[in-house]
Amino acid sequence: MIATLHTAVDEIRTGRRTPVDLLEACLERIDRLEDRIHAWVFVNHKGARAEADRLTAELRRGEWRGPLHGIPIGIKDIFDVADWPTSAGSRLWKDNIAQQDATVVQRLREAGAIFVGKTVTTQYASFDPPPTRNPWDVRRTPGGSSSGSAAALACGMCLGALGSQTGGSITRPASYCGVAGLKPTFGRVSTQGVVPLAASMDHVGAMARCVRDLGILYQTIADPENSEEAPAPTLPPRLGRLRGFFENRADDSVLRMMDEACDRFSAGGAAIMEVTLPDGFAEVTARHRTVMAVEAAAFHETRLRSVPHDYDANIRALLEEGLACPAPEYARCKDAQIRLRDAMRACFTGVDALLTPATTGPAPDAATTGDPLFNSPWSFTGLPTVCFPGSRSREGLPLGVQLVGAPWRENGLLTIAAWCEDVLGFEATEPSL
Amino acid sequence: MIATLHTAVDEIRTGRRTPVDLLEACLERIDRLEDRIHAWVFVNHKGARAEADRLTAELRRGEWRGPLHGIPIGIKDIFDVADWPTSAGSRLWKDNIAQQDATVVQRLREAGAIFVGKTVTTQYASFDPPPTRNPWDVRRTPGGSSSGSAAALACGMCLGALGSQTGGSITRPASYCGVAGLKPTFGRVSTQGVVPLAASMDHVGAMARCVRDLGILYQTIADPENSEEAPAPTLPPRLGRLRGFFENRADDSVLRMMDEACDRFSAGGAAIMEVTLPDGFAEVTARHRTVMAVEAAAFHETRLRSVPHDYDANIRALLEEGLACPAPEYARCKDAQIRLRDAMRACFTGVDALLTPATTGPAPDAATTGDPLFNSPWSFTGLPTVCFPGSRSREGLPLGVQLVGAPWRENGLLTIAAWCEDVLGFEATEPSL
Repeated sequence: MIATLHTAVDEIRTGRRTPVDLLEACLERIDRLEDRIHAWVFVNHKGARAEADRLTAELRRGEWRGPLHGIPIGIKDIFDVADWPTSAGSRLWKDNIAQQDATVVQRLREAGAIFVGKTVTTQYASFDPPPTRNPWDVRRTPGGSSSGSAAALACGMCLGALGSQTGGSITRPASYCGVAGLKPTFGRVSTQGVVPLAASMDHVGAMARCVRDLGILYQTIADPENSEEAPAPTLPPRLGRLRGFFENRADDSVLRMMDEACDRFSAGGAAIMEVTLPDGFAEVTARHRTVMAVEAAAFHETRLRSVPHDYDANIRALLEEGLACPAPEYARCKDAQIRLRDAMRACFTGVDALLTPATTGPAPDAATTGDPLFNSPWSFTGLPTVCFPGSRSREGLPLGVQLVGAPWRENGLLTIAAWCEDVLGFEATEPSL
Repeated sequence: MIATLHTAVDEIRTGRRTPVDLLEACLERIDRLEDRIHAWVFVNHKGARAEADRLTAELRRGEWRGPLHGIPIGIKDIFDVADWPTSAGSRLWKDNIAQQDATVVQRLREAGAIFVGKTVTTQYASFDPPPTRNPWDVRRTPGGSSSGSAAALACGMCLGALGSQTGGSITRPASYCGVAGLKPTFGRVSTQGVVPLAASMDHVGAMARCVRDLGILYQTIADPENSEEAPAPTLPPRLGRLRGFFENRADDSVLRMMDEACDRFSAGGAAIMEVTLPDGFAEVTARHRTVMAVEAAAFHETRLRSVPHDYDANIRALLEEGLACPAPEYARCKDAQIRLRDAMRACFTGVDALLTPATTGPAPDAATTGDPLFNSPWSFTGLPTVCFPGSRSREGLPLGVQLVGAPWRENGLLTIAAWCEDVLGFEATEPSL
């Protein structure tokens, strides 16, 4: 069985396992499975082993760097790690060596993490299909853009990973691969040292095998200056189920999974209420697309003109769309973004978190990265989300539940999500590869 | 001599003057001067007199509505006042009756203000020359877009007024007319019920005859939820003089005024330091123009296409520019806006406020509304500013000083500005009309 991050922390802290042991278990899985999964841009065998040796020796001397001492972590390849290339899925950036760590990478390093390597991202964190495959069915996509992070976690190649989300790039791959993901409130976690896609919607987040693991990663990566002071939610929680937009396009397996999950949450004592979305909510999809296209074009314009062959079909179409957009249309979308964020406040009256499916269905085949429909509204409004495994489809593919919190309430949201996960009976299972 | 708002408050509170008295003095000036000045879209003679009667009777009964009890105030004609038209300088909006008060209008009303009438704005708060003339020389512009508010205050037609600024629309007319203006931090004062020009740079502010008056108005209009908790600055203050961008295009009369003012501040005990602007600061002018053009176009687009004849030359050119702007260019300007706001923090190290001229020179002739060059950077970055009369040009025209504060530090900024005004020896003078 694959360890979870929080049990591994505990084993290391109590001396039942060494960082060297834990890393070797991860590397063994990489050696065995990577040629079928393609989760990694490169694996830092030598450097990680040297670091595991150091961390193991430090423990023997009674030294403890921090809450991730000796934990193998995967870094999505849009984050700068000092002296490593940041290629962001580009063919031409393979030798783009980072001068220093991104802020969150530095925080993980100071907390004692071991960097296993760089995980595959779709090109520029957009949605052209990556080489990575879904460990539950290698004909299928792991989702994107944090494709490698999700697939690697599902196989136990690492115990935590950095992801990022501008549309559905954390929640969708986590759901498709049967792992957990946290997309914090917009602005909660630094994006310094991260290749941007759309500056006003780029979120750095955490991925792991269960919600408790996310909590440990979150404490490490969150900006300390924005600390949360809200009281912890009372459990069992009051959950607001969002139907309409969030169920109209969900397939039967997802609707069944949601009904069953709600039954179990109710049986566990949760109050399940139906919450109405603000008027015109459905327009969020088109507006999200416009904002993403324009902001991505603002960043890539010069480079797209000089090396158009470095851009695959989907990202190129997105950029062309952004370049052709008249500025007033974008300005109206930005205005709508602020208004929708404000209007969403009303949805939290009498409710501790909102409840939706994480995806429209299980992972589709590898020709796409799947549909971010249920995730992009939260990237647009900046509300925090946590997703975790709900159940399986008939074919045995993972299906995820998504919880949405009020702004700046990640701790409360993680507490509720952990309760939900317990009620559903989380067990760290692995695909039979 | 024209009263100031704070002395009038004191006279009313102590029973030395009645609201009826004070209003009649203002109406007398309007009757005498308005046909040369054109400060008003309409004067609320009857309603204001009825309100003054009520407020006078209330005082006799010992009732006191609030800090502006019985004070005659002018409302710029982009603010909604319930049951009055909001025309925003448009020929077609003359009968656009407001359903309810703008948030700030309601706050003034609750504080006991008497609304004298609607003051002239340039068309849509932009920069086509308005009918209003400068009371110090009626061949000249009062500045814009808060043209009527500034001119009315200079003539004693009211004792306080609402203004708004997206470029230099408070500071420039205040300076040209020899009165004082406060443009608060972006977001500090509600813009609800105000006709927008450019949503990310529209600031509601206060205009009056001296800095102390601004303080009373500011306490009334500021959003209570954003209260300020910084310690009061130590006096005499440490002032950071900005040269370069802020003096290169100032004329001799302005440079002489600034040198003399600095000498007097120094003699009064202030420390005057030179502060360096962030790299690339001068790009602010073009970026400000792009953001204003695009956001104005986002609001006016549909209407411009249906009634193009309602738009005068300058606003029309601005809107056409915004419509033609590609969205990524605007997005990059918005990104630069955030970066410049952050970079400005460094300018406040060891300095309590920044010091610049309010305008490039005295009021030019009435064919333009003058140059907002020294004001638009603060509308772009959202930093609070206060301006007040410095001295006179050789022709006897007012020249203003502008102080710039760190974000959310209006109270401190007003304290420093009042000190500066005292050192310069403020006296409420009036043009000889």
